[in-house]
Amino acid sequence: MSDDSAPWSASVFEEKLRAKGSGYHVHHPFHVMMAEGRLNARQLQGWVANRFYYQISIPRKDAAILANCPDREVRREWVQRILDHDGYGDDEGGIEAWIGLGEAVGLSRDDVVSLRHVVPAARFAVDAYVNFARQASWQEAVASSLTELFAGHIHQQRLDTWPQHYPWVDAEGLRYFKGRLTQARRDVQHGLHLTLAYFSQSRALQERALEILQFKLDVLWSLADAIMLSQCEMKIVGARA
Amino acid sequence: MSDDSAPWSASVFEEKLRAKGSGYHVHHPFHVMMAEGRLNARQLQGWVANRFYYQISIPRKDAAILANCPDREVRREWVQRILDHDGYGDDEGGIEAWIGLGEAVGLSRDDVVSLRHVVPAARFAVDAYVNFARQASWQEAVASSLTELFAGHIHQQRLDTWPQHYPWVDAEGLRYFKGRLTQARRDVQHGLHLTLAYFSQSRALQERALEILQFKLDVLWSLADAIMLSQCEMKIVGARA
Repeated sequence: MSDDSAPWSASVFEEKLRAKGSGYHVHHPFHVMMAEGRLNARQLQGWVANRFYYQISIPRKDAAILANCPDREVRREWVQRILDHDGYGDDEGGIEAWIGLGEAVGLSRDDVVSLRHVVPAARFAVDAYVNFARQASWQEAVASSLTELFAGHIHQQRLDTWPQHYPWVDAEGLRYFKGRLTQARRDVQHGLHLTLAYFSQSRALQERALEILQFKLDVLWSLADAIMLSQCEMKIVGARA
Repeated sequence: MSDDSAPWSASVFEEKLRAKGSGYHVHHPFHVMMAEGRLNARQLQGWVANRFYYQISIPRKDAAILANCPDREVRREWVQRILDHDGYGDDEGGIEAWIGLGEAVGLSRDDVVSLRHVVPAARFAVDAYVNFARQASWQEAVASSLTELFAGHIHQQRLDTWPQHYPWVDAEGLRYFKGRLTQARRDVQHGLHLTLAYFSQSRALQERALEILQFKLDVLWSLADAIMLSQCEMKIVGARA
């Protein structure tokens, strides 16, 4: 094996995974507009309603990982994600909190759960993620979850900027973002640990993990594109260079 | 059963299916630009390269229909679509003809077959179609093919307008469109016959067929959106009304 194909050290590999954050949807024009307070109420509603389709798909993605994973220890920890999203016992769960966000921005519960505002391209992007988790190995599907590495920042940004830019949004509605700050920190430890261990067996596997993370970034970016096209009047001003 | 829920007659049902043509991608801004000669060479290349992913997915979609269909008579006829696209004996097939189209617009064979120019959202839309055919009943997947009802017009439009607007494209490269004119006419007879027979069992089924055709229109429209976003410089000019 030449030096070129020797696996990167765990810290170099982690650094390369983290560097993928430059393509996270926090940099998408629609999310930049959101953070700068340049969305109107209807556009914010459109985002919440479309993104709900992602929210309800997450536990199905996580269940696909459980379904493909023969390691009970991994499943014991990973199942927590399903409990977090669907709720368990006294905890209403993330999906219910997202419906609360919908109500806080002025949608009815039925506007959100009926999925009637979800545009086709948003479904296609999110379904690509669930189908990947069904068809790939559980380790690959775990790696695809690693956009969590970058999620803390975007949730915090919303908590920081919405009260000022969108004062008409009931602050109670922001509890989804608050809850995810702690959960995502815990989740990412687990996902990162599993990914560093499994994919560090070879350089080729490490490169595969980076590709998978890019695929997931593409899912989120395409979701943002779909929402932008459905909520913004856009004009073709020329050809791409 | 009230009149409201009685099945439509075959001719009314067919008329409703054909009326869906108002949402066919021939009306998409990118395809309008194409027909009006307003694309530059690179944009036309981007379309051909991205659309190739759809071309290579068609036989897999058709194979999924065969895989789900227990009726040998239907399979004997439907398999012709796989032969048409993949080629058989002396016939190079539609996929090879599409590579010829790629070369005619200035791409190399490798530019096309490597899929390196295919953008993620194009994959997500096309994969949604293949996954639908895998997971739905074969009759539903047959109905999803009915955008063929509208394909003759768009192929003819390209044959009519390209020599004038894009004289630098080698005319020999247009053989895919010529071939599809006859094939699509034959295919649509079969697909329409099967759809009218199966879905006319109830009004609810007929409405389901219209929904499925809408899903397929959404796939093609989203594919065009993805290509437009990747090839055109676009500017947000306001919120959608």
